[in-house]
Amino acid sequence: MNTRLNKLKCKIYVIIFKSNTPAGKAFDVTLLAVILINMLLVMLDSFEDIHNKYGLQLYVAEWVITSLFLIEYILRIWSVNSKLKYILSFYGIIDVLAILPPFISLFIPGTQILIAIRTLRLLRIFSIFQMSDYTKQSRLLLQSIGRSWSKIAVFMLAVFTAIVVIGTLMFLIEGPEHGYSNIPVSIYWTIVTITTVGYGDIAPVTMIGKFIASITMLIGYSIIAVPTGLITAEAIRQKKEENIKCPRCFTENGKDFNYCKYCGEKLKTFD
Amino acid sequence: MNTRLNKLKCKIYVIIFKSNTPAGKAFDVTLLAVILINMLLVMLDSFEDIHNKYGLQLYVAEWVITSLFLIEYILRIWSVNSKLKYILSFYGIIDVLAILPPFISLFIPGTQILIAIRTLRLLRIFSIFQMSDYTKQSRLLLQSIGRSWSKIAVFMLAVFTAIVVIGTLMFLIEGPEHGYSNIPVSIYWTIVTITTVGYGDIAPVTMIGKFIASITMLIGYSIIAVPTGLITAEAIRQKKEENIKCPRCFTENGKDFNYCKYCGEKLKTFD
Amino acid sequence: MNTRLNKLKCKIYVIIFKSNTPAGKAFDVTLLAVILINMLLVMLDSFEDIHNKYGLQLYVAEWVITSLFLIEYILRIWSVNSKLKYILSFYGIIDVLAILPPFISLFIPGTQILIAIRTLRLLRIFSIFQMSDYTKQSRLLLQSIGRSWSKIAVFMLAVFTAIVVIGTLMFLIEGPEHGYSNIPVSIYWTIVTITTVGYGDIAPVTMIGKFIASITMLIGYSIIAVPTGLITAEAIRQKKEENIKCPRCFTENGKDFNYCKYCGEKLKTFD
Amino acid sequence: MNTRLNKLKCKIYVIIFKSNTPAGKAFDVTLLAVILINMLLVMLDSFEDIHNKYGLQLYVAEWVITSLFLIEYILRIWSVNSKLKYILSFYGIIDVLAILPPFISLFIPGTQILIAIRTLRLLRIFSIFQMSDYTKQSRLLLQSIGRSWSKIAVFMLAVFTAIVVIGTLMFLIEGPEHGYSNIPVSIYWTIVTITTVGYGDIAPVTMIGKFIASITMLIGYSIIAVPTGLITAEAIRQKKEENIKCPRCFTENGKDFNYCKYCGEKLKTFD
Repeated sequence: MNTRLNKLKCKIYVIIFKSNTPAGKAFDVTLLAVILINMLLVMLDSFEDIHNKYGLQLYVAEWVITSLFLIEYILRIWSVNSKLKYILSFYGIIDVLAILPPFISLFIPGTQILIAIRTLRLLRIFSIFQMSDYTKQSRLLLQSIGRSWSKIAVFMLAVFTAIVVIGTLMFLIEGPEHGYSNIPVSIYWTIVTITTVGYGDIAPVTMIGKFIASITMLIGYSIIAVPTGLITAEAIRQKKEENIKCPRCFTENGKDFNYCKYCGEKLKTFD
Repeated sequence: MNTRLNKLKCKIYVIIFKSNTPAGKAFDVTLLAVILINMLLVMLDSFEDIHNKYGLQLYVAEWVITSLFLIEYILRIWSVNSKLKYILSFYGIIDVLAILPPFISLFIPGTQILIAIRTLRLLRIFSIFQMSDYTKQSRLLLQSIGRSWSKIAVFMLAVFTAIVVIGTLMFLIEGPEHGYSNIPVSIYWTIVTITTVGYGDIAPVTMIGKFIASITMLIGYSIIAVPTGLITAEAIRQKKEENIKCPRCFTENGKDFNYCKYCGEKLKTFD
Repeated sequence: MNTRLNKLKCKIYVIIFKSNTPAGKAFDVTLLAVILINMLLVMLDSFEDIHNKYGLQLYVAEWVITSLFLIEYILRIWSVNSKLKYILSFYGIIDVLAILPPFISLFIPGTQILIAIRTLRLLRIFSIFQMSDYTKQSRLLLQSIGRSWSKIAVFMLAVFTAIVVIGTLMFLIEGPEHGYSNIPVSIYWTIVTITTVGYGDIAPVTMIGKFIASITMLIGYSIIAVPTGLITAEAIRQKKEENIKCPRCFTENGKDFNYCKYCGEKLKTFD
Repeated sequence: MNTRLNKLKCKIYVIIFKSNTPAGKAFDVTLLAVILINMLLVMLDSFEDIHNKYGLQLYVAEWVITSLFLIEYILRIWSVNSKLKYILSFYGIIDVLAILPPFISLFIPGTQILIAIRTLRLLRIFSIFQMSDYTKQSRLLLQSIGRSWSKIAVFMLAVFTAIVVIGTLMFLIEGPEHGYSNIPVSIYWTIVTITTVGYGDIAPVTMIGKFIASITMLIGYSIIAVPTGLITAEAIRQKKEENIKCPRCFTENGKDFNYCKYCGEKLKTFD
């Protein structure tokens, strides 16, 4: 009987964790659908009038989905071999966080809204859709940012200092009577301005304040060119690295070429 | 007589669908003028006082243009050989949509405003001005985006998840009393913030809300560099591909060069 | 005496139009200073309380500067050989436009504010500071935009159509009661949104309006990557073109190199 | 005894100015911590209710930190050899500015808020964290901007002129009754618009004003591509310059390669 259980365990593991079988694919699609439905219900529940009218139904639906997630979580732990590794993994933690809220709200009233944390399960999308290719792409993307890291760090440190200095300056110039209630709020305004968001909930009133604001905007508008330039330069370098150089004429060929596009030389060895 | 009709049909086809004859060009210019005039009239009609004063005249003008569009549509169907293909084509559907509104408003009152759909006929501009060259350019543009597609998809998925998570978080933190009435509105605010639009119709009030808003802005401001970098790298690769490499000295020459700019070698064969 | 007059004419021509003599340079600096002072006075006059207090003094100062500009204009016409060419040139027209306003305001009261047109004389800065080098740079810049023109045109046509269609759509959805008074105003809102400016003077109120606004923002945020990519690719190509290729080892050297940085080969011939 | 004093002086110099000893590192970390704590206290003090409640305690803390900074400054001057050079250096001036405010506020009441200037000491971070590498990176960054300087200057001059002209125009069109109180305010609005910040504290009301505002936005949205393109082109050129070219096959290798990645040729000489 142990063998039959083991076989079942193995089967369930393949269904839940892998997506190269029809059953596995079906499971992934269902899981994604449940996550999206759950998200939709949470969104609907956030409307006051829907909450008042259909609060009970949504509450029941919430518990149904919670049960499904709980069963899924138990099956995951049971079927996986390295249990602790899964529990402490990124997705393992999110899976628990998605189950807990309704139980917490049973004991501490008013915390039911924590259900919104469940949105984080959306991140499962990454592990469902063609994991290998996309993950590789995002690794390349992060690498490209990483290689320019020391330059970007200097840049960000300078921007951070500028934000704090300008924020403090504006607090001194405009002061609480014009909405710059304290330095953190003033720094918030500086970020709103330097990123060119510009809500307008706080805006300079005095002439000198408007002048410094103008300088801040122009700085914010200009410096966007710097990280863009650095990342672009890195992306181009990476693209070139992927090319295969022809051993006869030194022409750079795309990574999927078998023969040199220029002189016809064989680029790869076929076994 | 059949032959004469056939000749006429062929003539009309050339005038309406082609633009390499004087008559064809005149037709295209007239069509564009009528579309622009129609657009202008729709715009004028959207002013309340003009609508009250000249409503009748504009109504008549609308029917005149509708008739012209109807006649054009009938002629198009009659003169073209593969009728169904035209009817179901992109422009075929827009052409019908541009005619229908006034007729619908005859039966269902209050729908007259649907005439605004007619603005879509503006897209005809693409088929009128040097179709071949511009279409080629836009195909290259789309190709350039397409090649970076898998990278852009990962990026967009991550941004989408971030928007939903931040939106939900802000709904929990700020709540309906500060304008974040429900999660969809909160997500709308997140998009307004992350794209650095920043209307200010909704803005964070609490300290922690302002802090998360600041993070969101900085994210939005930084990530613009990523798609820009990817598309630029692709555009550069494409530009290089167009070059012609000299067979003698390996210098890259522009696509319109006949002789190598460096060593004078002949690059193209003239027949 | 004619010869003496001719000599004087020639001298004045060199002083006014050229800047390679000490007198010419002094004239240029003085002219720039007068333009800047005039700008400052116009700005001061735009403050209501300053206008009320020092209106008379500013009025006199205005006439003094107008006289100076008039004298300069007369001298320019008198000293230049191809008078008509100067009068109809870009700077010639701006020079006249800078003189006219005070005279017009003598006859038509209330037009005195036209003096602000004089700000256009600021453009003289371009002709004063190292004209040759800067003009060359700006020509290269415009060329770089020009080469990508057909691609940029397609892009702009698509954006323009999108703006009109979205503007009309939002007018239908939100309507005059939410501030979208008519289609032109609605198109203005679309431009405010798609360029990520986001004043917030008009903002969507309905749910469907907010949804379309979100799409518009995301479009606006994404498409900035396209012209940036195109212009960058062109700027890089241009930079490469300036390089000098070594005839021995094909290394690309900077435009100001005399010997190949790689193999020491002479790149330029010295006479 | 002079020798012992000299030894101490040397020791203190190494601790304060260098960071290659454990004591030096500990000093740097402590200094940074004190600067950050001080920043935090200044921020807290800017909250009105905290200031009212804990004003005295914060005042004492301020004087304690001032004393520490004063002692540090005295030790710096005493231990350094070229005293005047330090006093007049960038960090020397900031160090004095960070000490002065509390003393000034003793004599001139109401200036205590000048303490905020102390935020500038944050810039010390640059001299603490891996000075050499980061400073080199930022020098490269500035160089990259510097090389495109003449092009960027033309661009900025054109933008500046456009801002002044549009600002004046909008003052004429909208006028003080719509918030464009005077030309400087109008120029402030133009900068808010052209940098796509868009507070909305001032927004065009008239139709023609909205039209010019739309043009301004589109200009602002488009021209961001120009500096980005220039800086990117320069960053790419710089990246290439760092490469080492193989003397046998002309392949470009990364700056940290010892052998050609393509043909294995030795790139560097090892001693």
